[in-house]
Amino acid sequence: MSHDLDAVLSRIDQDLPQSLDRLYDLLRIPSISTDPAHDGDVARAADWLVQDLDSIGFSARADETAGHPMVVAQGGSDDGPHLLFYGHYDVQPVDPLDLWDRPPFEPELQDTPNGKVIRARGASDDKGQLMTFVEACRAWVAVHGSLPVKLTFCLEGEEESGSPSLVPYLKANRDALRADLALICDTGLFDAQTPAITTMLRGLLGEEVVIQGPDRDLHSGMFGGAAMNPARVLARILADLHDDQGRIMVPGFYNGVPEIDEGIRAQWDGLGFDAEAFLGSVGLKHPAGEAGRSALEMIWARPTCEINGMISGYTGAGFKTVLPARASAKVSFRLVGQQDPHALRDAFRAFVRARVPADCSVEFVEHGASPASVMETGHPAFEAARQALSAEWPKPAAFVGSGGSIPIAGYFKSILDMDSMLVGFAKDDDQIHSPNEKYDLDSFHRGIRSWARILDAVAKG
Amino acid sequence: MSHDLDAVLSRIDQDLPQSLDRLYDLLRIPSISTDPAHDGDVARAADWLVQDLDSIGFSARADETAGHPMVVAQGGSDDGPHLLFYGHYDVQPVDPLDLWDRPPFEPELQDTPNGKVIRARGASDDKGQLMTFVEACRAWVAVHGSLPVKLTFCLEGEEESGSPSLVPYLKANRDALRADLALICDTGLFDAQTPAITTMLRGLLGEEVVIQGPDRDLHSGMFGGAAMNPARVLARILADLHDDQGRIMVPGFYNGVPEIDEGIRAQWDGLGFDAEAFLGSVGLKHPAGEAGRSALEMIWARPTCEINGMISGYTGAGFKTVLPARASAKVSFRLVGQQDPHALRDAFRAFVRARVPADCSVEFVEHGASPASVMETGHPAFEAARQALSAEWPKPAAFVGSGGSIPIAGYFKSILDMDSMLVGFAKDDDQIHSPNEKYDLDSFHRGIRSWARILDAVAKG
Repeated sequence: MSHDLDAVLSRIDQDLPQSLDRLYDLLRIPSISTDPAHDGDVARAADWLVQDLDSIGFSARADETAGHPMVVAQGGSDDGPHLLFYGHYDVQPVDPLDLWDRPPFEPELQDTPNGKVIRARGASDDKGQLMTFVEACRAWVAVHGSLPVKLTFCLEGEEESGSPSLVPYLKANRDALRADLALICDTGLFDAQTPAITTMLRGLLGEEVVIQGPDRDLHSGMFGGAAMNPARVLARILADLHDDQGRIMVPGFYNGVPEIDEGIRAQWDGLGFDAEAFLGSVGLKHPAGEAGRSALEMIWARPTCEINGMISGYTGAGFKTVLPARASAKVSFRLVGQQDPHALRDAFRAFVRARVPADCSVEFVEHGASPASVMETGHPAFEAARQALSAEWPKPAAFVGSGGSIPIAGYFKSILDMDSMLVGFAKDDDQIHSPNEKYDLDSFHRGIRSWARILDAVAKG
Repeated sequence: MSHDLDAVLSRIDQDLPQSLDRLYDLLRIPSISTDPAHDGDVARAADWLVQDLDSIGFSARADETAGHPMVVAQGGSDDGPHLLFYGHYDVQPVDPLDLWDRPPFEPELQDTPNGKVIRARGASDDKGQLMTFVEACRAWVAVHGSLPVKLTFCLEGEEESGSPSLVPYLKANRDALRADLALICDTGLFDAQTPAITTMLRGLLGEEVVIQGPDRDLHSGMFGGAAMNPARVLARILADLHDDQGRIMVPGFYNGVPEIDEGIRAQWDGLGFDAEAFLGSVGLKHPAGEAGRSALEMIWARPTCEINGMISGYTGAGFKTVLPARASAKVSFRLVGQQDPHALRDAFRAFVRARVPADCSVEFVEHGASPASVMETGHPAFEAARQALSAEWPKPAAFVGSGGSIPIAGYFKSILDMDSMLVGFAKDDDQIHSPNEKYDLDSFHRGIRSWARILDAVAKG
C-alpha cells in the first residue's frame, strides 16, 4: 500500500458519518424519472450533484437534454490516465407503497441480522453506488489537493426510464466525453465477501402492447360471448411467448445466442453459486427458465422474456362485470451474445400481430433496445482493479456475468470507442426495484475505499 | 283504456318535470356499493327512498343487513292482487373517470340525435328504472288516493356487488315478502320501439384468481429467467379457458346447457335482430363466441366466460423492469339452463390449480354464484302486461331472453315460491357499467306510463 493511498483510506474512515449525511441528502430527493409528476425532483437531484462536485473542485454543470439533465463534470490531474465515471441519479418508482416498512424517501440506518443497512429508494440503485465514487474522490482531494487521474463525470437521470436522451447526448458530446476508460458503478458484489468486476451484460428490449377491442367498456351480460374481449386476446399472446420447456417462441429469437465456452463455465462452476439460496431468498425453489440450464446460466448467459406489468378492465375492490375495451402489457426481453434488439422488436411485433383477431387492433410503445455487451478484460486496468479490490475485501475479486442490462457500456464502445469496467458493491438482497430497498453500510464504506484503491492502482498502472 | 287509467296517464304527463327532479336527487348520491369508501352514500340513497315512499303513503323503512340496507315498504289496496316490486338503488363504479364527458353524479338532460337523454351513473341501471315504477305509483295515489293493488317494495343496495345479504334477508323475511307475483325492473326494451318482457335470464358465477410467485417484486434483470413469473402463469391459465373455436375448456362446463327449442328459435328469428348493428354500435363486427352460433344465441342462450379485469406488476407511465410477486384476474361466467354454479366453481378452481406450477400458489375470492332462470310465462299477468305494454309503445311487446344475470328472480322462486315478471325500458346503448351512462327521457316517460298501465291491467286481470 502506497503512503498516498494510506492517508486517503484513513480520511475515508474518519469522514464516514459526513459521507452518510451527504448520501441521505441525495436520497431524500424523489427523483423518479419514469413519472412526469417527479420531473422537478429529478432536476433537483441533478442540481444537488452539480453543487457537490463543484465543492470538491470539479467544474460541473447540468446539461439540458430532451428529457432529464445530464450532469457532467471535469477535474483531476492532467498527468494520469483519463477516466470517465458513469452512474445514474434517477430511481425506480416506489409502488406498491403499502409494502414499504417506512417512507421510501426518508433514509435511515437500520440494524439487521447481517449488519447495518441504509434503507431508502435509490440507496443501492444507484445513488449509494455513485456516491461511493464521489466520496473516494472527495477524500483524495482533501488529502492530496487533487486526484491521481484526469476525471470526467457523466451522471444520467434517465437510466430507470429507458435512457431516451443518452445516445443523442453521447453523439453530440463525443470529444468532451471520450476518455481512456469508463468506470461504471451500477453492478454488485458476487457475495458479501467477494467483490466482482462484471464482464458480461445482457441487453434489453422493452415493449408495451396495447390491445383495443370494443370502443368502450361493455356490460359483460349484455355483450359477453358476442363481443371480442381484448383481455382474452392479450392473455393468449402472453401465454404463447413461452413453450412448456421455458423456451421463448418468437421466431428467430435465439439467433446470435452463443453457448458459453468451457473456460467460462469452469470459472463459474468454481464460484460455488448456491441456486437454492438465491431462489430461497425470495421464497422460491425451482429455476423457471429453459429446461436443462443452470440457474446461473439462466441469469448470466441466457436470454429471457418477462411480463413486467399487465392491466385490463376493473381491478379495484369487489367485482364489476365489465367487458373491457382494452388490455395492455409491458414485456421485456434480456438479450445475450449477438442478438439484435431491433430485429427482435420487429419479430416480436409480428408475433403479436399474428395473434390479434379481426375485431381488435394493437398498438406498441417502445421502451428501449440495447444489445448485450462483453467487456475487454485484456485492458490493464482490469488486472489493476482486480488486485485493488482483492486487497480491500475478505476474498479475491471475481470476473462475473450479470443478468441486468446496462446499455451504457455498449454505447461507450460504439459511440465513444471506449472500453468500460464495471465495478459495484450492491448485494442480491438489496431489493432494488422493490419495496424496502437498502444498501449495506459495509457496501458503502468498503465501496468508497475500493474506489480509492482503484484510482491509485489505475494511476500507477 | 279505462277512465281510471286515463286520468293517471294525464297526471304522469303533467308531473314529468317534477319526476325528473326527484330522479336527479337520487342520481346525485354516489351509491357505489362495491367500494367501502361509499358506504355512507349507499345508506343515504336508502334513506332518500324511505322518505320518498313515505311521502306517497307507504310505510317504508331501511332494514339493516350485514352489508347495505334493504329498503322495504308496504302499501296499496287490500282488494287487488299482492305484488312485490324489486329494483336496486346501488350503482357501478365510475372508473375510468377520464372517459366521462361530465361528472357522473351531476345528472343533466342532454339533446342527442336520438332524442333527449338523462346522463349520469345509475340513470339507467337501476335508479332511472326503479323510479319509473315509483312515479307510476305516485300518480295513481295522487289521482285515486290509493293503488289498485296491494304492493310491497323491496329495493336492494348490493346488486352491483354480488348481493351478499340478499339470500339471508329473503330467508329471514319470507312471510313479510311473499306476494302473488314479483315485478322486477332491471331489464331493457327489445329496441327503441318494441317493449319486452324478459323470460330467460343467464346465471352468474364470479371468481377472482390471485397467483402469488416470489415473496416480493423482483428486478427482472437479476431474477428474470430463473424466478417464476406469476403474470406468465396467469396468462397461461386465462388463455387456456377458451379453445380456438370459442368453446370454454373447464371440464364439465357444458353439463346442463340445453339447445334452444325450435319454437323459441322461430320467435327469435322473427324479431329481426341485427347482429351487425348490435356489434357495430360498439365498434365491432365479428361475433366472438362459439363458432356456429348466432350472436343472439351467444348473448341470450349460451354460457360465456369473460375476463372482467386483470392486473400484475407495474402498470403506470413508462417502464419498470420488475418481475412481479403476484398477478390477479377477475373472471365471470354467464350460465344457462341447468348449469350448476357451485359445481362449476369447483371445476374452475380445479382447472386453475392444475396449471399453477410448484413455485406459485393460488388464492380464490368468491364473487357470487347464481343459476340461470326461465320465467313462468303461463301466469296470466304476462299476457295482461304484454297487452298493456303493446298499448303504450309503437310496436307490440315481445317475450325475449337476456344475456344479463338477475339472480333475484331465481331467489324469489326458490326462497319465496313466487314467480317473477321482468319488465324494463333500458336500451342497448345506455352504456350501463361504462362511462357516460344515460337513460332515454322516452324510456323514463313511457316507462312510468307503462307501469301505470300494467298496474291497471294486472288489477283487473
